[in-house]
Amino acid sequence: MHNLGRRRLPTLAMAVMMLAFAQQIVPAHAEPRASEFTLSNGMQVVVIPDHRAPVVTHMVWYKVGAADEPKATSGIAHFLEHLMFKSTDKIAVGEFSKIISRLGGQDNAFTGQDVTSYHQRIAKERLGTVMDMEADRMQHLRLTKDEVATERQVILEERRSRIDNNPTALLDEQMNAALYLSHPYGIPVIGWEHEMAKLSREDAMRFYKRYYAPNNAILVVAGDVTPEEVKKLAEETYGKVPPNPEVDGRKRPQEPKHIAARRLELKDPRAGNASFHRYYLTPSYTTAKPGEAEALDLLMKIVADGATSRLYKKLVVDDKIAATSGGDYSGWGLDSGAISIYAVATNGTSLDKVEADVDAVLDEIRTKGVTAAELERAKKTFLADFIYESDNQASLARRYGWSVAVGRSLSDIEGWPKAISKVTPEQVKQAAATYLDERRSVTGWLLPENANGRGERVEQPVAHSRS
Amino acid sequence: MHNLGRRRLPTLAMAVMMLAFAQQIVPAHAEPRASEFTLSNGMQVVVIPDHRAPVVTHMVWYKVGAADEPKATSGIAHFLEHLMFKSTDKIAVGEFSKIISRLGGQDNAFTGQDVTSYHQRIAKERLGTVMDMEADRMQHLRLTKDEVATERQVILEERRSRIDNNPTALLDEQMNAALYLSHPYGIPVIGWEHEMAKLSREDAMRFYKRYYAPNNAILVVAGDVTPEEVKKLAEETYGKVPPNPEVDGRKRPQEPKHIAARRLELKDPRAGNASFHRYYLTPSYTTAKPGEAEALDLLMKIVADGATSRLYKKLVVDDKIAATSGGDYSGWGLDSGAISIYAVATNGTSLDKVEADVDAVLDEIRTKGVTAAELERAKKTFLADFIYESDNQASLARRYGWSVAVGRSLSDIEGWPKAISKVTPEQVKQAAATYLDERRSVTGWLLPENANGRGERVEQPVAHSRS
Repeated sequence: MHNLGRRRLPTLAMAVMMLAFAQQIVPAHAEPRASEFTLSNGMQVVVIPDHRAPVVTHMVWYKVGAADEPKATSGIAHFLEHLMFKSTDKIAVGEFSKIISRLGGQDNAFTGQDVTSYHQRIAKERLGTVMDMEADRMQHLRLTKDEVATERQVILEERRSRIDNNPTALLDEQMNAALYLSHPYGIPVIGWEHEMAKLSREDAMRFYKRYYAPNNAILVVAGDVTPEEVKKLAEETYGKVPPNPEVDGRKRPQEPKHIAARRLELKDPRAGNASFHRYYLTPSYTTAKPGEAEALDLLMKIVADGATSRLYKKLVVDDKIAATSGGDYSGWGLDSGAISIYAVATNGTSLDKVEADVDAVLDEIRTKGVTAAELERAKKTFLADFIYESDNQASLARRYGWSVAVGRSLSDIEGWPKAISKVTPEQVKQAAATYLDERRSVTGWLLPENANGRGERVEQPVAHSRS
Repeated sequence: MHNLGRRRLPTLAMAVMMLAFAQQIVPAHAEPRASEFTLSNGMQVVVIPDHRAPVVTHMVWYKVGAADEPKATSGIAHFLEHLMFKSTDKIAVGEFSKIISRLGGQDNAFTGQDVTSYHQRIAKERLGTVMDMEADRMQHLRLTKDEVATERQVILEERRSRIDNNPTALLDEQMNAALYLSHPYGIPVIGWEHEMAKLSREDAMRFYKRYYAPNNAILVVAGDVTPEEVKKLAEETYGKVPPNPEVDGRKRPQEPKHIAARRLELKDPRAGNASFHRYYLTPSYTTAKPGEAEALDLLMKIVADGATSRLYKKLVVDDKIAATSGGDYSGWGLDSGAISIYAVATNGTSLDKVEADVDAVLDEIRTKGVTAAELERAKKTFLADFIYESDNQASLARRYGWSVAVGRSLSDIEGWPKAISKVTPEQVKQAAATYLDERRSVTGWLLPENANGRGERVEQPVAHSRS
């Protein structure tokens, strides 16, 4: 029900058919389609009309996430997201989701480093009810010590199952801790276990009272509504919630200059084939110079995405030293972005060889850039993704909500296909030369280890792919 | 004038003569010599009589350091230490040290991760005056914006000269950032430059008002005084400073379990010969089980200290691949300690070889332990150090002040020689097996780099030793 994310908008798995699709369809959604206004208490509202079916997607995005947590309380943003499903003066414990369900809807919630959001999909005539419920829990959350204690067991179990039982997730956590020297993006969204175990009702309420307020929130409604309808309902519900004068932006430690390449090695008996991982710190769409984030997106599409990528062709197809490979650019962070790359070694291949191949691919692209044909193909794929996602009401609402929450404007969002289309091969080469710099990087090796802990490699028959 | 330290008590350079010295002298100072009491406002006082000369060493230790800094204000503890030499209602700007000097004394100050201290050495009859001045600046510090702006240039210059112009210091900073995944010991005491540049008068005053108070301070007086004399003077000076009810201990993020060995590489054209560095996270005297920190001290004496150490014999004498080597255990932290090891490669030797030799030395000690003769020699060296330091009034006062500030008792401090003498070879082996664990480690390579930045090694004729 709840999701955690590392400042990354989940990419929908794109099928090859999308390419063909994109070539036929004019990008209609490059035309402005969303509108925005602000309530008198400071709450931003974005409305995205979509009249194909009598349903709406309703989201509230708080401009707060794990990276805003007070010291030594890692996990509190996500913990509070769970606790928001407890009671208010009007709603009994655990009833929130049940009511949505009885109304024929679905609900969900998400915590990232920069954002926390609450979503419902529901019949249009129920929109007012949902807004009323969401506005209610924005200000009247009730928590008992017992509820907090019980839910703490739930998040600890979530950590165990998602992170501690998953060597790749553990490596990711360690690599993030090494990637950021100072910025809280180095602390996992779900929290460090020893700090999660101490999170209290007081921690949750303090975080709630400080950050959950209309002047720190964005309402996004996509679906079979007009801006006027949404405005009227919003004023009757959210509009009655008083603003919090303590909301004062986010003061986070920023990164010092990166001067030394970092590496780490995780040995885990549960790991399958050895795998290679590399992260680079980059700007995000919010912090990059114009065109730079778009160039990074295109670069990583060419380098690492799918079976036609440079990495896959070299490591899997030609040299046959990797079972699979991949990577992407995560550009959705408020303060920075990151490139990630991985490759899973074939049985018996040492990671030295895998790493040498990866570096050869990256060196070539840094020095020689990309071809016009590659770039054209990458642009078409992104355009197809954009159109495909725009067709999905939830994806569309998520795109607007996340982007606005990290400081982008509607014209940034809607102008993205055009910005992608304008990127030149020279810009991609420049982005590669600037950001595929080892000093910005962390390299991680995940190695299987047998039970005696001596680190000898154990070959396993099944290839391990990144979750 | 001001010192910075990484939770490490500066070790006096020990000469070989000390060994002979120790064998002749009975450890008289294992007998209790200090006494302590607490003022009614909560200020702790430690008095160490030493009547050999009519002088005193006066120190105030605040139980606050860089690791207690608010987020995104790294360097504020050290910056405030500088600013404490500005004015109060009674003392004009910059006059504090001049007055001490006119009284025939010397003064100094120090900021570490856990402590901030102010010291004066002065004729005994001036003690009251100094206490009056120190109590005055505990509560009446005045700062103007201009003074803050000027002094900020001083600390920025201090950072440039001590850190940014010193590749070994830069590497140390990067390795610390990688050693600690969560704890603020990973942030440099002097601060990250981009945060130092923004430190304001308000940041300094907020830190001052929160942490500088008698109930967060320890007064240490060593010298030609009695506890009664000190008590009378302290009550007349510090005793009149009101306590701060906001002092509420230190809430710092603690480390998660370490599961992955980390490495990093710094290339710097100013580096001399390539050098190898390794840190391991350990407990400190404050956090270790009984006997464990003492075993770590002895272990590192045997492994890394001086020309008779295991490392030196293997790398420098036998294999001739290192120009020098060294290392130690820093056990003075409030929350943790660290082992550090280094070796400077001889011209043309690759660090792979150096690292393999270091690991061979550590593997041997992990699996086979130390000999009784080695342990005996190490104990005698520590005993000699202890006696030698006890003979120095400033060292003695520093030992008590620092130890009490990180939660140790007078009997811990005075019982240390006995605790060292009781350590068995088995305990040292156990400490090595437990803490020389790669998962707790960061390995750093410092490599010379020529101006074109391509990372080719440039041989330089002069060996570079760790500062």
